[in-house]
Amino acid sequence: MSQKRAGEFALIDLFLSQFPRARVPVGPGDDCAVLAPSRGAQCITTDAVVEDVHFKRAWFSPEDIGHKALAVNLSDLAAMGALPRWFVCALALPRDFPRRALLGLARGMSALAREHGIALVGGNFSSARELSVTLTAAGELPPGSPPLTRAGGRPGDVLYVSGTLGDARLGLAQLQAGRRRSPAILRQKRPVPRIALGRLASRFASAALDLSDGLAQDLGHLCRASGTGAELDVERLPVSRAVRASLGLEGALAGGEDYELLLAVPPGRTSAFERACLRAEESITRIGRLTPGPAGHMRVTGGRALRLPAGFDHFQQDGGAD
Amino acid sequence: MSQKRAGEFALIDLFLSQFPRARVPVGPGDDCAVLAPSRGAQCITTDAVVEDVHFKRAWFSPEDIGHKALAVNLSDLAAMGALPRWFVCALALPRDFPRRALLGLARGMSALAREHGIALVGGNFSSARELSVTLTAAGELPPGSPPLTRAGGRPGDVLYVSGTLGDARLGLAQLQAGRRRSPAILRQKRPVPRIALGRLASRFASAALDLSDGLAQDLGHLCRASGTGAELDVERLPVSRAVRASLGLEGALAGGEDYELLLAVPPGRTSAFERACLRAEESITRIGRLTPGPAGHMRVTGGRALRLPAGFDHFQQDGGAD
Repeated sequence: MSQKRAGEFALIDLFLSQFPRARVPVGPGDDCAVLAPSRGAQCITTDAVVEDVHFKRAWFSPEDIGHKALAVNLSDLAAMGALPRWFVCALALPRDFPRRALLGLARGMSALAREHGIALVGGNFSSARELSVTLTAAGELPPGSPPLTRAGGRPGDVLYVSGTLGDARLGLAQLQAGRRRSPAILRQKRPVPRIALGRLASRFASAALDLSDGLAQDLGHLCRASGTGAELDVERLPVSRAVRASLGLEGALAGGEDYELLLAVPPGRTSAFERACLRAEESITRIGRLTPGPAGHMRVTGGRALRLPAGFDHFQQDGGAD
Repeated sequence: MSQKRAGEFALIDLFLSQFPRARVPVGPGDDCAVLAPSRGAQCITTDAVVEDVHFKRAWFSPEDIGHKALAVNLSDLAAMGALPRWFVCALALPRDFPRRALLGLARGMSALAREHGIALVGGNFSSARELSVTLTAAGELPPGSPPLTRAGGRPGDVLYVSGTLGDARLGLAQLQAGRRRSPAILRQKRPVPRIALGRLASRFASAALDLSDGLAQDLGHLCRASGTGAELDVERLPVSRAVRASLGLEGALAGGEDYELLLAVPPGRTSAFERACLRAEESITRIGRLTPGPAGHMRVTGGRALRLPAGFDHFQQDGGAD
């Protein structure tokens, strides 16, 4: 039903002007981008950020939105152990979306793209009532290197998470309460994709995923895909004092949008993995282990009684000690 | 800000159930799909259909929406001469979107995917106020075969279009006027991507694109990319009697969403191209030729005075004969 207007092409040019020219046989502007054959296997993900679902324009600057749209896709590449290669960007823009905001969005996205060496090779603009940014990103695995899936975990594998948990959720609570700046708000707006850790982990780990829906739910995904249970030592969870005070451990477990990596490492490889992380200055914490199951059955250790997040039917508390 | 709920996973399963399992190392369900390295170069496109911009739910069945979302992406692959390989699907769904409608959308998409042998390898669901479907599709070129870009045209090359022009625009006008069924409405709702013609044309043509914004505007794109002008014989345009009567030739030229191919073929190859099209039962029409320029300067021949579409500043009428 729609037709492109001269104004739309001007917007596309404005957006593209913020990105370096992609070194590919055919870049943006033709019917398709054309890419040389990849040497290794390709990892493909698609993820969208939608106004009033993933961000509010009152809280997020255009740069934040551009950053976050790319970061959530890069985080998926990180979880596979892939090296970022290219992405395409589909923008749905309200008719009143300011040129300056579009420029900001492009800048936020471009800065993160540059940092991870990923090239924008194409895109699409359409109008819409609400702003949304839908990206498809591709990474490459070194030739012969297997991907890090959710399904490779085995009973006995040690569980690690990167960084800290619950901050992004605390940041959201603070935004809702009227605050505009804090370290937690920065985590909500500017997630850091763990690309380098994912590459490193691919040499050691049996399974991985990135935490987008909260550790409780995402650990369930890993367990069910791997056909294992899990045992979680809640005392070990890397949760800041601020998060603990505001959300409790329960809130940190349920908190979405951490974009940290959850990794399972076979017991014989944990020492080497921990040493490699230390050398690479990657922050990881051992939080438990995979168990024989039943698949998806998770048990909490750590002593204290804990009200576990409601709605996660695959998360059952068996009480304290074992 | 959002978190996935059990209901969302059920919707994803429902959607995926309508597609055959993709034969790839890792399909939908992990953080990324994993694809074996491609043998030839890859062509990548991303295109969205948005409620009330590209379709109205009152006029389009869910099957129509699913079909159209994939068709507009396949049409881009056709224009490069690529063979469809895989796609990912990002759905933004209103909260009240019925399960049955989601199933219909998946069925419409799946039927077209099957027809062209393209595999759904991943996707994403988010909620939104309006329905939108954003696809990224990839095709492959036979190893060593160059892509069919917009930029390869040379002065003297003969211009062809496939099928007929203006029907989808007439279909839209009929929908707006309250009609619900007609051949033109079918063209608006169910565009046919010209994949086989694109593959065939890649052996003969110097340049190509798919007509999404109307011949007048899209020929301008090809001319500017190729650095040529063009001469169009409007008497030859393949425009049905119904379109001619309702929209005039002007309307057919300006009519978007034809999703036919515009092809430039060097003069020495036209006979062989036309014979190959005849054998393959591909309908094409010779409509003019590329000229030395200036780049983007288009001239109309054909005798009759024609009011050319407004707003296409690159389209100038020099009058009749030459």
